[in-house]
Amino acid sequence: MSELRKDPITGRWVIIASERSKRPKEFDTLRADPLPGVCPFCYGNESLTPPEVLSFRHPRKDPDEPDWWVRVIPNKYPALTEGGEPLRSAEGMYDMINGVGVHEVIVETPDHQIPMAALPVEHIREIIWAYRERINDLSANPKIGYILIFKNHGPSAGASLDHPHTQLIATPIVPVLVEEELKGAKKYFKYKERCAFCDMIAHERRKPLRLLEATESFIAIEPFASRFPFETWIMPRHHSCHFNTILDREVEDLAGILKRTLGRMWNVLDDPPFNFMLHVAPPHDECNPYYHWHIEIIPKLTTVAGFEWGSGFYINPTSPEEACRFLRDAEWEVPYTKPNRVFQGQNK
Amino acid sequence: MSELRKDPITGRWVIIASERSKRPKEFDTLRADPLPGVCPFCYGNESLTPPEVLSFRHPRKDPDEPDWWVRVIPNKYPALTEGGEPLRSAEGMYDMINGVGVHEVIVETPDHQIPMAALPVEHIREIIWAYRERINDLSANPKIGYILIFKNHGPSAGASLDHPHTQLIATPIVPVLVEEELKGAKKYFKYKERCAFCDMIAHERRKPLRLLEATESFIAIEPFASRFPFETWIMPRHHSCHFNTILDREVEDLAGILKRTLGRMWNVLDDPPFNFMLHVAPPHDECNPYYHWHIEIIPKLTTVAGFEWGSGFYINPTSPEEACRFLRDAEWEVPYTKPNRVFQGQNK
Repeated sequence: MSELRKDPITGRWVIIASERSKRPKEFDTLRADPLPGVCPFCYGNESLTPPEVLSFRHPRKDPDEPDWWVRVIPNKYPALTEGGEPLRSAEGMYDMINGVGVHEVIVETPDHQIPMAALPVEHIREIIWAYRERINDLSANPKIGYILIFKNHGPSAGASLDHPHTQLIATPIVPVLVEEELKGAKKYFKYKERCAFCDMIAHERRKPLRLLEATESFIAIEPFASRFPFETWIMPRHHSCHFNTILDREVEDLAGILKRTLGRMWNVLDDPPFNFMLHVAPPHDECNPYYHWHIEIIPKLTTVAGFEWGSGFYINPTSPEEACRFLRDAEWEVPYTKPNRVFQGQNK
Repeated sequence: MSELRKDPITGRWVIIASERSKRPKEFDTLRADPLPGVCPFCYGNESLTPPEVLSFRHPRKDPDEPDWWVRVIPNKYPALTEGGEPLRSAEGMYDMINGVGVHEVIVETPDHQIPMAALPVEHIREIIWAYRERINDLSANPKIGYILIFKNHGPSAGASLDHPHTQLIATPIVPVLVEEELKGAKKYFKYKERCAFCDMIAHERRKPLRLLEATESFIAIEPFASRFPFETWIMPRHHSCHFNTILDREVEDLAGILKRTLGRMWNVLDDPPFNFMLHVAPPHDECNPYYHWHIEIIPKLTTVAGFEWGSGFYINPTSPEEACRFLRDAEWEVPYTKPNRVFQGQNK
C-alpha cells in the first residue's frame, strides 16, 4: 500500500506510491503500455482492466463487455487504494497516513483515436455526466476528504496511455493547494463580502480583454495572472461551490464550451499536450458563498524549471490578452476524420 | 518591461515576460541558440553577452575578454529588468508591479562540455564564491525582496543553452513559496522551540535510512517527504538562515559534497536532467532561529501532471529510503574525459 507523507516544514503531502515503484533504470521508458499494441481501454479488451464501476451502455448489455460509450474502471496501478482506514502514524518528527483512497479512470470513448475536442457535444455531455455520477457516489464516503477529476493529454503532460481518458483520485485529506484556494477565497470574501470568482467574471465581461466566450451558464477566460501561456479557465456564471449539483441543461452547455475551448487550443497550438483539472470544494463542506468551482486548462508549452521550483513564481512568455486574441480568432472545429466506426458500439 | 501580476485568490505572483514574448508557433522550438553553432558563454564570444558584472580571471586581464574561469553576466533576455522603481498599480480588482529586478547568469566554466559533477572541487568552490559574492552585492539593494540562485541542467529541466551555467533572479517581493517555508518553519519553532531543519538533521543522523553523506559542515539527505524520485537536500549542519555568511572553509566543504552528490546522481541515473535551488532567507530578514538555508536538488524523471497541478500533492514512485540505497552504493566520480584544454584559460 502507498503511504502519504507530510513535509514537516511546508505541511505539503506526497504520495510514496509503492504500487508504482520504479528503480533507476526504469525512468527512461516514458510510456509503458501493459501489452505492446494492446490497448486496455479499447473494445474487446475489457478483461484487461479491473471490473468497471460505472458504464453508459445499451441497457440490455452486460458489464465488462463491449458496447459501452463511457466506461469508468479502477486504475490498475493505483496511487491510492481502497480498503482499510486512513490511519495516522509517525516516524519520530515525521507524520504519515496509509495510502487509503480511490483512483479511477474514466474512459471517454471506445475510439482509441478521437480526442475530446473532436467528440460530438452529446458525447462530451455523457463524459461530464460520468464525472458528476462518480463525485456524487464518492461524496457519501466519510473516509474521503477530497475528489479530484483531471485529464492528462499527450505524453509530455503525463499521459501514459494514448486512449482518451480522464482520471479521478480521491484522497483521505484535503490537499494543500485546495486549502490555500479556499483560504484565499474566504479572505477575499471577508474583505469584500463578494466571491472573488464572481468578481472576476463581472470584470472580464465588462472589459473583455481576456474573455474567450460566454454562454448562457458558463464563461471561458484567460486568467489575469495566467501561470502558463494559453492557460484557460471555464467557470459557471452563477455562483456554485460544488460541481456535482450541476443541472442537466448546464452539463450540455458545459460540454459545448469545453469542446470549443479545446478545439481552439488544438487549432492555435497544433494539438498541444495539456492538463485540465476540475477545482471544486471538498465534498463534506457545506455550500459556501466564497468558493466557486471551475475548470483550469493548462497547455504544456513551457518547462517548469529551477526558478519556478524555488519561488512558486511562474514566468509566462505570452500575456493572457495576447493568448485570448489568438484563441478568439481561431476556428474551434477540429479537422479530425473519424475512423469508420461509431461511438455507441453498434459495430459489435 | 515585464509585469508581475497577482492571482486574486491564491496571492501567487506570475511574471508576464514581455522581453521573452512568444507567439503560438514559437513554442515548438525547445531550444533557441542565439546564433546556431555559436555559444555566447564560450571563450572568444564574450561580446555576444552584456558586459560582465563579475569574473574570476587573471588579475592583469581585461573584463569581457577570454581568460576567466567563472563569469557572471546579465541575462540577455531577462525575466525582470533593472532600472526604475517597483511600482504597484491595479486593473480593477487585480494587482500588479512593474517587472523590476535582476536576472543574471553565472557561467560556471569556459568549457562548453564539462558538467558541474565533473569539475574539480577547487573549481566548484569558485562557482560557490561567485554565488556568495552576487548575493552579498545585491543584498544591499533596498528594491530587492528576494534573491534566488538556481540551476537547470538538461533541456527537459529547462536549460535553453548547453554550456554549464547557473542563474540568479532577484525579485521585488518575497515569493509565495519562500513565505510559506518561512511561515511553516516559524510555526514549528513556536511549538517545539527548535529549528525543524536542525531536527531533521539530528533525526537522519540518528537513524540513517535517508542519509547520503555527512561531512564536517554539511549533510546530504533524501528528505522524508521527497516530492520527486532521488530528490536530495544539502544542508549546513550548524544552524544558519543566510547563505552569504558561509565561511571559506565551509565553501570548500560544500563544493565537495555537491560534486559527490551530483556525481552519484549522474552515475545512478545516467546524466539525468535536474534543477537545483538555493533556499535562503530574504536578504533583509534578520538572522532568525527557525529558518535554515539549504540546497534542493530535483532530478527530472517524472512528469508533473494534472493530479499535481490540481492538488499540490506529488506522487513519487521511488521511496527516499530506496533512492538513498542506490545513491549511497554508487560511485561519485564521473567518468568524464576532459577535452584537451584547461579550465583557467591558459590555452589562449
